[in-house]
Amino acid sequence: MPHIPLDPQLPGITALFAYRPETAAPLGQLAQVLLRGPSTLTVGERELIATVVSNGNECRFCTGSHAAAAAETIDGGRAVVDAACGRVDDAPVPAKLKALLRIALAVRETGRAVTEELVAAARAEGATDTELHDTVLIAASFCLFNRYVDGLATVAPDDQAVYDQIGKQLAAGGYAR
Amino acid sequence: MPHIPLDPQLPGITALFAYRPETAAPLGQLAQVLLRGPSTLTVGERELIATVVSNGNECRFCTGSHAAAAAETIDGGRAVVDAACGRVDDAPVPAKLKALLRIALAVRETGRAVTEELVAAARAEGATDTELHDTVLIAASFCLFNRYVDGLATVAPDDQAVYDQIGKQLAAGGYAR
Repeated sequence: MPHIPLDPQLPGITALFAYRPETAAPLGQLAQVLLRGPSTLTVGERELIATVVSNGNECRFCTGSHAAAAAETIDGGRAVVDAACGRVDDAPVPAKLKALLRIALAVRETGRAVTEELVAAARAEGATDTELHDTVLIAASFCLFNRYVDGLATVAPDDQAVYDQIGKQLAAGGYAR
Repeated sequence: MPHIPLDPQLPGITALFAYRPETAAPLGQLAQVLLRGPSTLTVGERELIATVVSNGNECRFCTGSHAAAAAETIDGGRAVVDAACGRVDDAPVPAKLKALLRIALAVRETGRAVTEELVAAARAEGATDTELHDTVLIAASFCLFNRYVDGLATVAPDDQAVYDQIGKQLAAGGYAR
């Protein structure tokens, strides 16, 4: 039961976007730039970063939605997403992405957990300045989204089919409004 | 020493805004709506929420900047800001604001820490739906900003005069770009 009166037909953050369009606009624009804008990271890699952070924050709605979007877009599909949510070290992803996921999980704890060593390890695998920047900001943004969704107790559907549908929509249409 | 090449003349988040204008635009717009847009919460109350969350996250740059902005704008000035950063329960602020600060500190931990009891206590002191929404989103947003600033190891000046100047600028001009 949400803490404020939200449209009961709308799950998760979609109800909050409908409730407060003034803040929905910049939040949607931020997600669109970070997850769908021009980047040397693929859409699937960026959705996986969002998923792993949301999973760490135990946000059911965000994890379900972005895991589905990542499964639609990443090489290897759902098996890769599930592996990365289990243990990044064992996930069948390229070494650069693995190093960026470790940085994202550090950001999830606190920004101060991003060490010189984590950054150097990602650079050694070819990570660029902008990839490092965007990884940190995607992870930080999902620390916002996860808290927003759960802090107002929005509805997280139980039906996996709902998330699969959201994942297809996010894969095809992104976050532009 | 920042993890990516940033303009050494620019402290904290200002260097990141200069580095990546595409994400600076929605982040600035989000802060402007939440902290300066139309609201039944005063600018000082909203800056205090931002400060208490940043202080809890131990983000020196954000705490210094928003404590200075709050000191410029809240009834009681710096003494109130320092008290709220020490222990919210003892802070000389109205009961509604105290209840909203408790919610903000819960969001800082995790969205799931915002209980029915915390929400009911704020409502009993007169908090509205929109005030509850905005408190959660301000707190969640500073969980982003704090991680962004520290996750890329931006420069936090030691000189209090720098923060006082930033506080005056934020009090007078807000976050519009």
